[in-house]
Amino acid sequence: MAILIMAAPARMKAWREAIGANFPGEDIRCWPGMGEPADIDIVVYGGNEPELFGKLANLKLVISQRAGIDDLIGNPHLSQDVAICRAQDPKGDRMLDDYALLLTLYHHRHMPDLLAANARAEWIDPGVLPADERSVGVMGLGIIGMSVARRLRDAGFRVAGWSRTRRDEPGMECFHGPDQFDTFLARSEILLNLLALTPETVDIVDAANLARLPKGASVINLGRGEHVVDSDLITAVDSGHIDSATLDVFRTEPLPADHPFWKHPRIFVMPHTARRPRAESLTPGILEIIRRFRAGEPLPRMADRARGY
Amino acid sequence: MAILIMAAPARMKAWREAIGANFPGEDIRCWPGMGEPADIDIVVYGGNEPELFGKLANLKLVISQRAGIDDLIGNPHLSQDVAICRAQDPKGDRMLDDYALLLTLYHHRHMPDLLAANARAEWIDPGVLPADERSVGVMGLGIIGMSVARRLRDAGFRVAGWSRTRRDEPGMECFHGPDQFDTFLARSEILLNLLALTPETVDIVDAANLARLPKGASVINLGRGEHVVDSDLITAVDSGHIDSATLDVFRTEPLPADHPFWKHPRIFVMPHTARRPRAESLTPGILEIIRRFRAGEPLPRMADRARGY
Repeated sequence: MAILIMAAPARMKAWREAIGANFPGEDIRCWPGMGEPADIDIVVYGGNEPELFGKLANLKLVISQRAGIDDLIGNPHLSQDVAICRAQDPKGDRMLDDYALLLTLYHHRHMPDLLAANARAEWIDPGVLPADERSVGVMGLGIIGMSVARRLRDAGFRVAGWSRTRRDEPGMECFHGPDQFDTFLARSEILLNLLALTPETVDIVDAANLARLPKGASVINLGRGEHVVDSDLITAVDSGHIDSATLDVFRTEPLPADHPFWKHPRIFVMPHTARRPRAESLTPGILEIIRRFRAGEPLPRMADRARGY
Repeated sequence: MAILIMAAPARMKAWREAIGANFPGEDIRCWPGMGEPADIDIVVYGGNEPELFGKLANLKLVISQRAGIDDLIGNPHLSQDVAICRAQDPKGDRMLDDYALLLTLYHHRHMPDLLAANARAEWIDPGVLPADERSVGVMGLGIIGMSVARRLRDAGFRVAGWSRTRRDEPGMECFHGPDQFDTFLARSEILLNLLALTPETVDIVDAANLARLPKGASVINLGRGEHVVDSDLITAVDSGHIDSATLDVFRTEPLPADHPFWKHPRIFVMPHTARRPRAESLTPGILEIIRRFRAGEPLPRMADRARGY
């Protein structure tokens, strides 16, 4: 039995030490070093190596450093018998929260207009408002989405959330289910997507739903590229109904050089740069999963393959 | 006796009602309406009308909605006998805090690089760091600067402050006076200027002090245009020692169309858009100043003309 860790080279030492110190008896392998593949029964997964799993004959558990696990659930090389758990920090992800706040403030304070005015050497009055006069909507209220929504609420925005099942949270208007979706959209001047990718949520940011946002709304996608119908978003921005958009995720990554998003003056391409998994924040969750797995106990934050996340 | 209020047309009603409700006996005039100028002994000042004061023969008190009062202290139309008080919210200014956080995150998360990569259709890895691995320095720890520094500290940055006289604040490294300035600069990867403009602080962001910042530092100016030596900043950015800069204030505003800041790819011109004074947050301070003035009591937050702020 061995644990394979995948991490950026600069972060590998922190990961290995954190896991090794707590499980001194474990055989720990550091990707791309792997040793005998058949030894490996646990992968702490943080890479983009979909074919790896086909080589690990005795794999029993994948612990994902990432919040989104649609690529694991849909991976043909990964047996349905292998458990998938998310190593999420129950406090959310601070780097993602920072990034969501940055992009929300970026649209709230009219940075797209201000940067465009730089190119024209034009001194404009963008009509800034305080945060408490801006309605922000967060789609997806899982650990990650709720943490973002709380950060935006604490920054003073009028925050509403929308989720599959009912959630309640102080200082936040909570909508849920298909019946309340249109009402949620109609009040969201800045829309952030933090949904998991499932058959129900694919293509959710399409022409019909963009049209339900108030005129002049902005869109921020931090979920998955497949949530957005690219051509519908471009049409909505070009029509002026949507003011601008910032996208961190795309159907194909890296985004192909000929994709029209790149040079669109009101659509900003961020190269999937929301967060970098850190040993310090994810280790407690990973250690707990390993401990329970070795003890034969039920696993926390295990993916529900039928639900899709 | 009459009070003249200056405010943006959209905000005037809120100002007049807030002041009128607390002082029902007062004669309140709403700029640009003024009535008989000799009646006016108090101006709640929020405009850019330096010559107005020369017309008000019986003016005794100017209450500034703005944090910076260098333009009032240096105004030749304003008699030295007229008291100047700042209507600052003792909790700082929430819109300015938001804006300072936006711009700090903008540089921290390499938005200048990311936006430039958009124009090249290039998918880059900007090497993002968590906020607690970024050292931010705030120059000026008055009500406004300290409020910004606290907001950045609470957002997770490693914050240090520098002020004329010693300040202490939990979770913040506090430097003061000329002797500690170089040490403060040497650890500030993102430098924010929130100083008052005085003879001691004019031209403080010059070639020598820019050279003391660590290589790759960013500069954000939220103080006054006269704090920055424009040509020194351009030289430092062009040399690569300074990564990029965002400026909200300029020696001449609006910034002339032929100024080299406008089209510089690493210097961002924001049209003095940090904040808009709001009746809700400033009214309590203004009411207190008016009450004390009418009662002949000492005035709070009164400018010290010798110190310059």
